[in-house]
Amino acid sequence: MRLRNKPWAKDKIEEHSQYIVANPENSKGNWHKVFEKDQPLHIEVGTGKGRFITEMARANPEINYMGIELYDSVIVAALDRLIEADLPNLKLLNVNAADLGKYFAKNDVDRVYLNFSDPWPKIRHEKRRLTYKDFLKLYEDIMVDGGEIHFKTDNQGLFEYSLMSFSEYGLLLKYLSLDFHKSGYEGNIMTEYEEKFSEKGNRIYRCEVKYQN
Amino acid sequence: MRLRNKPWAKDKIEEHSQYIVANPENSKGNWHKVFEKDQPLHIEVGTGKGRFITEMARANPEINYMGIELYDSVIVAALDRLIEADLPNLKLLNVNAADLGKYFAKNDVDRVYLNFSDPWPKIRHEKRRLTYKDFLKLYEDIMVDGGEIHFKTDNQGLFEYSLMSFSEYGLLLKYLSLDFHKSGYEGNIMTEYEEKFSEKGNRIYRCEVKYQN
Ligand SMILES: C[S@@+](CC[C@H](N)C(=O)[O-])C[C@H]1O[C@@H](n2cnc3c(N)ncnc32)[C@H](O)[C@@H]1O
Ligand SMILES: C[S@@+](CC[C@H](N)C(=O)[O-])C[C@H]1O[C@@H](n2cnc3c(N)ncnc32)[C@H](O)[C@@H]1O
Repeated sequence: MRLRNKPWAKDKIEEHSQYIVANPENSKGNWHKVFEKDQPLHIEVGTGKGRFITEMARANPEINYMGIELYDSVIVAALDRLIEADLPNLKLLNVNAADLGKYFAKNDVDRVYLNFSDPWPKIRHEKRRLTYKDFLKLYEDIMVDGGEIHFKTDNQGLFEYSLMSFSEYGLLLKYLSLDFHKSGYEGNIMTEYEEKFSEKGNRIYRCEVKYQN
Repeated sequence: MRLRNKPWAKDKIEEHSQYIVANPENSKGNWHKVFEKDQPLHIEVGTGKGRFITEMARANPEINYMGIELYDSVIVAALDRLIEADLPNLKLLNVNAADLGKYFAKNDVDRVYLNFSDPWPKIRHEKRRLTYKDFLKLYEDIMVDGGEIHFKTDNQGLFEYSLMSFSEYGLLLKYLSLDFHKSGYEGNIMTEYEEKFSEKGNRIYRCEVKYQN
């Protein structure tokens, strides 16, 4: 994600607290109160400009969605989308995924989406990868038993690493495609990165894994 | 594997019982007696014309190898190779992998190689795939605890299926490459199919999985 300094971003985020949740620690264990309906919650970690999560929310009104993004300069693009779409079942959260445990309690979340997560190819940055074991523990600690991670990426190295990390953690591999756009899967919603990299001719990898609590 | 009827194959196999083990059921639990040295045993299931297993045996004299092939018309090609190479640490076995339990006892085998196994793409043939759960059980029942399966193929569908089957069975994914020939792995020994399909431009997939007994 290219970062441009956007000094106005913080103000804009604060002005739209109906979309980008302020003081999320207050909602821990009570996220359904933030949404119009009490229904399953799916979160995308590293949501970027928010196309995926917005289109998912539009397509699936019976699910609540939340897009989590670290950078205010990036999340404002997702905010613009959400202002436009004005969906009751979508919120954004401007926090670091490493702090998920501060904002979510066990059973708060039903599914985690990871899309085109930063690959951090250097082994000394392994701990930053969103599929590193410490993150798998964080997701486990906020999800229902049997919760799932749905992951797609064009990055071969990250995908290989992630499948090994999932296996090591004891996650069950339920679905796997090594060339997702040729797999015949219907109803795929593309992310910004997915469109960009598949247009370049990159293969898209996708899997679904499940916690076996 | 193209099968040509070779009426002389059976006789040739019987004439070379120092290479293609006759009455293998007699060696169950005692395979080290068949080899010159008592050392770990690695088997390749579906060995075809035997290039991989012969070159592995030549490169690793501290391991005993056995190539298992169902068809006599195919295994005779592996036999010719072995007659030529005359290696003390390699034997061939002309049996069906489904019968492994008749010929091997628990702890007889240290590693199983599967190379370019027949894909059986139709779901109604799932049970014939050498990575189907019943085969994973057969391998487990003849291997040491913590034994490994090393698998390579160019067949995307079989590889996807196999990774899911391994996960479902509880095997640990230790190594994974989604483009093995570009992975920088050193010392790869190519199989006949590997050479043929990589020359056509197909990607080679490879993984190592481990039983967690
Ligand atoms: C490569 S982009 C992909 C964006 C989007 N998912 C897509 O597929 O188009 C990864 C995004 O994850 C965000 N991100 C990375 N690490 C994060 C973390 N620890 N917490 C929250 N967001 C993070 C980055 O800021 C970036 O916007
Ligand atoms: C596609 S070929 C690959 C041969 C070789 N491994 C290679 O990579 O060049 C698969 C081989 O597995 C053998 N095979 C298939 N099912 C088998 C079984 N149940 N038991 C023993 N061999 C089998 C076939 O006869 C064939 O020779």
